[in-house]
Amino acid sequence: MGNMQQVLDAALENIKPSQEEITESNEMFRKIQAFIRDEFSLESDLMGSMAKNTFLAGDKDLDIFVFFPPETKREILEKKGLRIGKAVFQKFRSKDYVISYAEHPYTKGVIKGFRVEIVPAYKVQRAELLQSAVDRTPFHKAFVIERLKNPDDVRLLKKFLKANGCYGSDLKTEGFSGYLCELLLIKYSTFEETLKASQLWHYQEVLDVNNHFSKHEYSRLRKKFENQPLIFLDPTDKNRNVAAVLSHEKLAKFIFVARRFLQKPRDSYFARPNEEINTKQLVAHQKEKGTALILLTFKKPDVIDDILYPQLRRFSGGITKLMKSEGFVILDSWEFADTECGIAVELLSERLPKYLDVRGPSVFNPPEHQDRFVSKYKKIWLEGTYLTAETEREHVDADGFFRSHLAKSAKKLHDSGVPSTIAESLQKGFKIINFPKVSKIKSKEFWKGLGKDN
Amino acid sequence: MGNMQQVLDAALENIKPSQEEITESNEMFRKIQAFIRDEFSLESDLMGSMAKNTFLAGDKDLDIFVFFPPETKREILEKKGLRIGKAVFQKFRSKDYVISYAEHPYTKGVIKGFRVEIVPAYKVQRAELLQSAVDRTPFHKAFVIERLKNPDDVRLLKKFLKANGCYGSDLKTEGFSGYLCELLLIKYSTFEETLKASQLWHYQEVLDVNNHFSKHEYSRLRKKFENQPLIFLDPTDKNRNVAAVLSHEKLAKFIFVARRFLQKPRDSYFARPNEEINTKQLVAHQKEKGTALILLTFKKPDVIDDILYPQLRRFSGGITKLMKSEGFVILDSWEFADTECGIAVELLSERLPKYLDVRGPSVFNPPEHQDRFVSKYKKIWLEGTYLTAETEREHVDADGFFRSHLAKSAKKLHDSGVPSTIAESLQKGFKIINFPKVSKIKSKEFWKGLGKDN
Repeated sequence: MGNMQQVLDAALENIKPSQEEITESNEMFRKIQAFIRDEFSLESDLMGSMAKNTFLAGDKDLDIFVFFPPETKREILEKKGLRIGKAVFQKFRSKDYVISYAEHPYTKGVIKGFRVEIVPAYKVQRAELLQSAVDRTPFHKAFVIERLKNPDDVRLLKKFLKANGCYGSDLKTEGFSGYLCELLLIKYSTFEETLKASQLWHYQEVLDVNNHFSKHEYSRLRKKFENQPLIFLDPTDKNRNVAAVLSHEKLAKFIFVARRFLQKPRDSYFARPNEEINTKQLVAHQKEKGTALILLTFKKPDVIDDILYPQLRRFSGGITKLMKSEGFVILDSWEFADTECGIAVELLSERLPKYLDVRGPSVFNPPEHQDRFVSKYKKIWLEGTYLTAETEREHVDADGFFRSHLAKSAKKLHDSGVPSTIAESLQKGFKIINFPKVSKIKSKEFWKGLGKDN
Repeated sequence: MGNMQQVLDAALENIKPSQEEITESNEMFRKIQAFIRDEFSLESDLMGSMAKNTFLAGDKDLDIFVFFPPETKREILEKKGLRIGKAVFQKFRSKDYVISYAEHPYTKGVIKGFRVEIVPAYKVQRAELLQSAVDRTPFHKAFVIERLKNPDDVRLLKKFLKANGCYGSDLKTEGFSGYLCELLLIKYSTFEETLKASQLWHYQEVLDVNNHFSKHEYSRLRKKFENQPLIFLDPTDKNRNVAAVLSHEKLAKFIFVARRFLQKPRDSYFARPNEEINTKQLVAHQKEKGTALILLTFKKPDVIDDILYPQLRRFSGGITKLMKSEGFVILDSWEFADTECGIAVELLSERLPKYLDVRGPSVFNPPEHQDRFVSKYKKIWLEGTYLTAETEREHVDADGFFRSHLAKSAKKLHDSGVPSTIAESLQKGFKIINFPKVSKIKSKEFWKGLGKDN
C-alpha cells in the first residue's frame, strides 16, 4: 500500500507538532505549576492530549489538574479551586477567563495563546476510590502513557475523524472522544489496522483491552449499554463505556468512510471539505424534490451546547411525534443552533385534507364507551369491529399546528413535554418559515441538514 | 317493553307468510316429488327455510334434494342428477333453468313463480358418513325442526339482518346465513334475547349448543378458527364453524345496530333504508373533505359473485399494499361489481414528491451489499447505521402507478399476484377515473363505499 503510506505521511506532516511547539507548551505548564506550588502548596499536573503526546499541531490546550488531599471537603475544594484558577489568570495577566461547570466548577481562559483550564481534583491512589468523575482522568492518562506505542497514529485517527465530522464527545457532535481514539490505537496499534478492524465490527461490538469480561457475559453488557452502538470498556473502570456518547450516525459514518479510504486512500480524507455551502443549489434541489419544508426558529436559549443540543433533539422528536399522530407525514427533521436556533421539519406535504376519519372503540368494548362515541358524531360506520366517524381536522397545515401548539405559557409548554429552556424561549416568541423563505437562513447547521451532510 | 312488542308485531305482520302461501308451496313441492318418484324411482325431500318454516313471506324458494344410495358412484350421481333436474323443468314447462356448480353440479330455475333447485345428494344415515358438503343439509334440517321453538323469531332476525345489510353467507355479503339465524334462536329462544346476548359477546365468542367442548378447550378453538370473529359450532359437525364466512364488519354492525334497537326500538330497523343515493351530495362532501380518490374499472369477469368478490378484495389489498410501499398514503379502498366493476382507492394525496429517500444496507451488512448501493447512487448519507440515498420516484401519481403496473400480459399480472380472472380482464383494457369524474359512475356499491355505508 505505497499510496496509503504516502497519504498518511503527508497528513502527519500537517498535524504532528514541532519540537519547538512541544517545548514551548511544557515551559508554559512548568511556570503555572511552579506558581501553584509556591502560592498554594498544592501539586498540579498536566492532563489531556498534551500530557499524552497525542495532540494535533496548533491545538494549544493546557488542562491542568490541581490535586487536593482526599479528605478535603467538597465545598473547600470547589472554593479553593476557583481561587487558584483566578490567581493563575491574574498572575499571567490574562483577563480572558470564565468559570465553567462540569461536575464541579473550574476556571478556564487564555494565557499567551494557550487555552488553559485549572481543574481541582482529589488525589486518589486507586481508581476505585475516586470521588468525582474528573478524578478518573489521571488514571486514563497513566494507562495511555503506559500502553500507547504510536501516538502519531492517534493523531491520524483524530484528524481523520475531525475531517469527517465525527470527532468530539460533546453532545452536539456525539462523536469519538480523544481518549476513545487513544484506546483504539492501544488495541489496534496502527491507524490502518484500526480502520481495517472497524470493517469487522458488529452492532454493539464489545472492545475490552483488559479482558474484564468473558465472551459469555457480552450479551449482558449489550443489554446494559442498550442503544450504544459501540462498547469500549474503560480499562480503568469496567462499568463504564468510553463510547457511551457515540451516536449511531457517527459510528456508521466512521465505518463507511474508513472503507472508502481503505479502498482508495486520498489526502482529502484528512481535510475538512470545503465548507462553502451552495444554498442556491440546495433551494433549487428542494424545489425540484417537491417535499414540504418548514422551520421553527426562536431565540437561542442561554445554555451550553451540551444542554442545548440534546434538548433541541428531544423537542424536535416530541413535536414530530405529535404531528405524526395528527396525520402529517414526516420525512426528516433536524436541529440547528449556530447563527439561528430552531428545528427544521421535512414533510410529504404541508397541508392535510379538511376531514379525517377517527377510530372509536370496538363493539367489544364497554357499551358506555361506544355510546359516548356515538353521541359525539353524526355518522358512524364500522371498520373491522371498530366504530369509526369523520371529524373536521383541527389543523390542516403545519403552520397552524405550530401556532396552536406553541403559543402557550412556558409552564404549559414544559408540562406538555417541551424541554424547559426551549419552552422559555418559545414563550418569548417564535418564527415559522416556510420553504421558499428559508433562503434567508444563515445557519450552516440548517443547510448541512438540508444537504444531508452528516 | 310495550313499544318493543309493537314494533316486532308490526314487522312480523309483513314477513310472516300466509297459510295460503304455505299450502301453495307445499302443493308445488308434492307435485315435483311425485314426478321424481314416478319417473326415476328416487326419493326427494324439501330442504331450506321452507322446509324448516323459517322463510320470509314472498321468498318462494323450493330447495329439493334427490337422494341416491350411498354406494352410487359420484359420476353417476352427477349425471343422473342433472338429467332429473332437466326432466323436472321440462315436465313443468319451464325454459328458465340453468346448471349451477356448488360441490357438484345441480339444476336451478323458475317454475310458476317458485325458484326451484334440484340437488342430487347421498342418503346417509349418520352425519359422520357424509360424502359431500350438501349431504350435511338434511342433518341441519332435522336438528332445526327438532329444536327450534319459535320460527317467527328466526324470521324477525333474518329481516332485521337483511334490513341492515348483514344477511347472507355469500362471499359478497359475508354476513349471517339462514342456518346461523336458526341456531341463534335455538340457543337464545327469542329475537329480543338474541339481540341482548349479542351485547355480551366477546371477540371470538364460542357458542356450542351441544356442549361438544369444555371451556378450557376454547382457546384451542379460537386458534383453529383464527380471524373468524364468531364461532358457532355446528351441532351436526363439531369441527365446523357455522359463522366461518361472517366478517368482522358484519358481526360488528349487527352488535352495534342491535344495541341501538334495544335502546330505542323502531320500525325502520326492519325496513331496508331508502336506497336512493344522493351522489351529488357525496361528490360535494368528497370535495370538501379534500382527500384524493381514484377508480380503476374494467370489464366484469364472467364468474359467480362468490369467486369475483373475494378476488376483487384480494386484488385491491395487493395493489394498495404495493402503493403503500411506493410512498402513497392509502386511507381506504373498496370494490364494486354491480353496474361497473372495479376498485376505488382513497389517498391522502394523488401526487407524490419527485424524489424520495431510499434506505440501503446498514454499515454492519456485508461490504459487497454496501458497495453495490454506493455504486448505484451519487450521494450517500447515513440515517442511523443505514446508508441512505435519494432517487427519482418511478411514479409521482396514482394514475401513472396504475398504468405502469397493470399494462402487462395476463400471465405477468397473475405472476405478480393479481387473481386470474381479474388479470384476464385487465389485459383486455381498463379505465382510470380521477375524483371529479366519478360523478358518472352508476355503481351503487361504489357510492355506498364512498358514503361509508356498510
